Amino acid sequence: MIVTLANAVKEEEIQAIESQLKGFGYTCKQIKTQKAQYLVAIGKQLFDIRRVGSLPGVQDVHRVSDAYKMVSRKWKATPSEILLDTGTRVQEGGFTIMAGPCSIENEEQTRDTASFLKQAGIGIMRGGAFKPRTSPYSFQGLGIEGLKMFFSVAREHGLAIISEVVAASHIESMYEYIDIFQVGTRNSQNFDLLHELGKIDKPVLLKRAMSGTLEELLQSAEYIFSKGNERIMLCERGIRTFEKSYRNTLDLNAIPVLKEKSHLPVIIDPSHGIGIRKFVEPMALAGIIAGADGMIVEIHKTPDQAYSDAAQTLGFTQAEALFDRARKVFSMRSTF
Amino acid sequence: MIVTLANAVKEEEIQAIESQLKGFGYTCKQIKTQKAQYLVAIGKQLFDIRRVGSLPGVQDVHRVSDAYKMVSRKWKATPSEILLDTGTRVQEGGFTIMAGPCSIENEEQTRDTASFLKQAGIGIMRGGAFKPRTSPYSFQGLGIEGLKMFFSVAREHGLAIISEVVAASHIESMYEYIDIFQVGTRNSQNFDLLHELGKIDKPVLLKRAMSGTLEELLQSAEYIFSKGNERIMLCERGIRTFEKSYRNTLDLNAIPVLKEKSHLPVIIDPSHGIGIRKFVEPMALAGIIAGADGMIVEIHKTPDQAYSDAAQTLGFTQAEALFDRARKVFSMRSTF
Amino acid sequence: MIVTLANAVKEEEIQAIESQLKGFGYTCKQIKTQKAQYLVAIGKQLFDIRRVGSLPGVQDVHRVSDAYKMVSRKWKATPSEILLDTGTRVQEGGFTIMAGPCSIENEEQTRDTASFLKQAGIGIMRGGAFKPRTSPYSFQGLGIEGLKMFFSVAREHGLAIISEVVAASHIESMYEYIDIFQVGTRNSQNFDLLHELGKIDKPVLLKRAMSGTLEELLQSAEYIFSKGNERIMLCERGIRTFEKSYRNTLDLNAIPVLKEKSHLPVIIDPSHGIGIRKFVEPMALAGIIAGADGMIVEIHKTPDQAYSDAAQTLGFTQAEALFDRARKVFSMRSTF
Amino acid sequence: MIVTLANAVKEEEIQAIESQLKGFGYTCKQIKTQKAQYLVAIGKQLFDIRRVGSLPGVQDVHRVSDAYKMVSRKWKATPSEILLDTGTRVQEGGFTIMAGPCSIENEEQTRDTASFLKQAGIGIMRGGAFKPRTSPYSFQGLGIEGLKMFFSVAREHGLAIISEVVAASHIESMYEYIDIFQVGTRNSQNFDLLHELGKIDKPVLLKRAMSGTLEELLQSAEYIFSKGNERIMLCERGIRTFEKSYRNTLDLNAIPVLKEKSHLPVIIDPSHGIGIRKFVEPMALAGIIAGADGMIVEIHKTPDQAYSDAAQTLGFTQAEALFDRARKVFSMRSTF
Repeated sequence: MIVTLANAVKEEEIQAIESQLKGFGYTCKQIKTQKAQYLVAIGKQLFDIRRVGSLPGVQDVHRVSDAYKMVSRKWKATPSEILLDTGTRVQEGGFTIMAGPCSIENEEQTRDTASFLKQAGIGIMRGGAFKPRTSPYSFQGLGIEGLKMFFSVAREHGLAIISEVVAASHIESMYEYIDIFQVGTRNSQNFDLLHELGKIDKPVLLKRAMSGTLEELLQSAEYIFSKGNERIMLCERGIRTFEKSYRNTLDLNAIPVLKEKSHLPVIIDPSHGIGIRKFVEPMALAGIIAGADGMIVEIHKTPDQAYSDAAQTLGFTQAEALFDRARKVFSMRSTF
Repeated sequence: MIVTLANAVKEEEIQAIESQLKGFGYTCKQIKTQKAQYLVAIGKQLFDIRRVGSLPGVQDVHRVSDAYKMVSRKWKATPSEILLDTGTRVQEGGFTIMAGPCSIENEEQTRDTASFLKQAGIGIMRGGAFKPRTSPYSFQGLGIEGLKMFFSVAREHGLAIISEVVAASHIESMYEYIDIFQVGTRNSQNFDLLHELGKIDKPVLLKRAMSGTLEELLQSAEYIFSKGNERIMLCERGIRTFEKSYRNTLDLNAIPVLKEKSHLPVIIDPSHGIGIRKFVEPMALAGIIAGADGMIVEIHKTPDQAYSDAAQTLGFTQAEALFDRARKVFSMRSTF
Repeated sequence: MIVTLANAVKEEEIQAIESQLKGFGYTCKQIKTQKAQYLVAIGKQLFDIRRVGSLPGVQDVHRVSDAYKMVSRKWKATPSEILLDTGTRVQEGGFTIMAGPCSIENEEQTRDTASFLKQAGIGIMRGGAFKPRTSPYSFQGLGIEGLKMFFSVAREHGLAIISEVVAASHIESMYEYIDIFQVGTRNSQNFDLLHELGKIDKPVLLKRAMSGTLEELLQSAEYIFSKGNERIMLCERGIRTFEKSYRNTLDLNAIPVLKEKSHLPVIIDPSHGIGIRKFVEPMALAGIIAGADGMIVEIHKTPDQAYSDAAQTLGFTQAEALFDRARKVFSMRSTF
Repeated sequence: MIVTLANAVKEEEIQAIESQLKGFGYTCKQIKTQKAQYLVAIGKQLFDIRRVGSLPGVQDVHRVSDAYKMVSRKWKATPSEILLDTGTRVQEGGFTIMAGPCSIENEEQTRDTASFLKQAGIGIMRGGAFKPRTSPYSFQGLGIEGLKMFFSVAREHGLAIISEVVAASHIESMYEYIDIFQVGTRNSQNFDLLHELGKIDKPVLLKRAMSGTLEELLQSAEYIFSKGNERIMLCERGIRTFEKSYRNTLDLNAIPVLKEKSHLPVIIDPSHGIGIRKFVEPMALAGIIAGADGMIVEIHKTPDQAYSDAAQTLGFTQAEALFDRARKVFSMRSTF
């Protein structure tokens, strides 16, 4: 059960509500986000929620049978919208494109990409400064200095940025130089990291674990929300299957299903999803038709010289064609 | 290596070519299909194929490095087209819809569906007469009598039909009352059945095994082709994954990849693919954008009373909406 | 519900029982096996089974909540035992070894192996005459002539044989020259083949599908039993997983779980299971400790020259060491 | 290539070796562990390693073709042994049992278990103080105070303890109250956590990711080693498969394969591995025969009242029977 508290709720009112709920056998958790204050009550299902709804300080009460609560569409039917500092929005009913290189390599590459994105009308640039690598001997990214440069170049072009965070201890130093924290597939159930991201007010794009279920993804999002951060996007980036013809298997079934289960925006990552350059476009367009609210794609001025993941990276010309078709497909979807 | 033989090739010329190839260390397999005669030579890779190309009786020679040969796009770049007796075509560059109930239940249901499809402009009706069931105690379908009724009702409406074949021994009795033999996911590597289907001249729609790879699907298609039947369609119908929110996971990555690997038409089955009625449409449209040449969907006049698989079956109104949007999406894809 | 009929039951008594059961809302299926006659009644769960138990002609009534019925341990607590013509037994409480080459190659190889097995005290020889191959161009086995030779050589040495059947149409011609029909992983849900094997009285070793669940394996066994053949062994032969260090992943969890769910003997195939020669022994011994009733292993006089699957085939010396340890481990297990 | 440096190597000698290696096109990483100093050189494969072996300050040079280096058996053929402060050892050729409750619940439970383990001759007690839960609303463990109590009770009984660490920021505060840091399946690729565990000198038990490959597990171990901590154990705890009859699928194939690939001890976790109480014993014994160096099992005085994972927890009597049989099976394995 989710109790939304009134704006002007007093501390003693909260105490009274909690104590009532405990009396009914519930355990309670207070949540205070950027937008509101809530009580999540976990316990028995049979109960007339009007008995809580009429208490002073209560604005609203919802029963949520899902294991995840605050991120469930059963509680909040209206879609969540995320407004970035640059004015770019991520929201249901829109389609937001994020693009850029796998890794931030140097200032020239960053500048080239930013200026390409600006002229292409794209508002968010992606780029890794901290790279989670399977091997400790692989390039681990330019680190915080790379991120600062990336952020400053992006802002010169009016762009917001998204970059991966790989350690809770990095959040503080990254905070000023980032618009969206990306949580990668290997950290999708790193609950410590999720908790810490719940304590800040910057948006988080949360990727599905490599073999994770949608339920697990939503529970991970719940970790962030329940610590106070409502600004979450879910990202489908391909799951592990037995198929060897592609790097991962982009699971487009997840799109309409996540849209129904949750009020959070759903983003697709066709680049990691299929992992083969020439198939990024059909998978991206398919994801749009299926209902995605945005996509994140890897592009590079000279893809075959990209520092990492060259095989799945689009050149600027291919990217432009994709953006153009993506807009057409999105515009057709809007008429359905 | 694939040697396409000239139309008027003589038996002694074939012997001569085979004997040359054996001299080079190859083993040979003669294939005679509806369209042509071929020699598939399996052996070493380094070899100047012009030495074969100039022999009498040879029309063409191709080296094919894939494990599958005749179904590979490396041999045949032009797409294969399948023309049914009713005049309906399945081909790259078109989009063919097949629709109908999971099971043929009785004449009234069959007639209702056929007349609905006719007015909706659909040319192929699906319907199971032999149902492969996990449990021996489940309804196994109306059998051959059901198929005869289905075929005759469909023909009255000018429709072609597709129906599943579950045993090699059924092929002969089904042959006269069917336009497309469907091979289900559990029989995708039933090589005996595939061999027998290779000996006839009717089209076969071959579904991917539940956890099968694309390579295995293409090898299964090769079984059919290598026995003499070129008229094959590949069908993606959802794979098994860890996700529990949907029945199967429709793998749309397979569409563009199969289209590149093979010259055969690729059909999607969004009904089994995701297995949830309200999500059939977004998955179907996504499959079209991704490049499918056709789709096969389950529909029923009263879906909640459908004998089987009710949960994934569309009603007629939903089906009409889907057909309409499918055509729009296909028509947009054609402009790309 | 399973009704075991009395030995001397009369046809009119069966009719009367069936008609009673239908009156209670059940559908019935008559089963007549080598051992007895049964009625399987499918329907509602709440019902006092004593009302059936007291009818004339009824020997016994059991409620079975599993989806599979006749193969369930809920119906038959005592383990099923299979006695071969040669006197060798497969049964719970024993441990039966089957060994031999992947493919029957020629008489000399067959003779060498048979004589090795005889001196090693092994009673059942394996060997493929019909090989189900992913590619139509691979060696498909020596066929029926190979099987006849195999059977005759084995019998000279007092051995029973097991060999794979790949088509329902082969059963009749193979019947006289075989002791155990093996159903391979790709045919594990080939219901037509299972049905036909249910009509004969020779034992069947049924392998689990490559990504099949235990429930599906038991349902496939039910197909055989429900057509009249009780002489079934279940075989765990490795499932498909994401791990690339071994060919398949032998799932030993299946052993104790299948033993609990079913009264049928459970055999492990460590050769296909892990697919790497040096690891066959530890997996085999682990399977014995876990409760397997037997194992089937690939051996060859000169394993590196084995026609197929050389990488997982043991030489005779390795095989002897394995048999010796297997017996020791089994004998320790018997004390637990 | 791994260069083991001499004990008395001088800084300028290291510089000289590094500069030589760079000259040959390698990139180098210095590693200083509890036991020795190394240079890992990543680069081309063709190279006469004797040119490095003869340099001053070099004790040894090995070529390692695996992607992981320091944890590979190709470098270090002798097994690694871990000696705990209490005198208990984990090592190849031995079999170490770790047992205890899923969660530390209170002092009484802790004391009961410790005294049971002591009399049963077990040297290491397990117990979670920080629990990684899928849902943020589940019990997250007693935390650091629970760990302190656990450690002190265990030490009173002469036991070492193992407990899970879920955040890099916890390492420092846990350090004094723990003998073995356990890394759970969801953190198996949390590289930040692995890096921080590489900086300390306490042993780490690293679990395989839920759908992770052995290669990924070994790479994760390499993260720890390459930061300076050699004291690592690998743990197989069950992978995700399609089978629904058990919670996870304990992959015993991993045991002999990991033993061959790496010099690190390999531990099995049959409790999480199969997740069903009555099947823990057969899987444990199977793991021993397959070559495991130890096992970690969940036990509880009153398993059905255990705070978490009751379904897979053994009572004390069952545990004693398991310990007894485990020793017998281990002792038989030692004779092979």
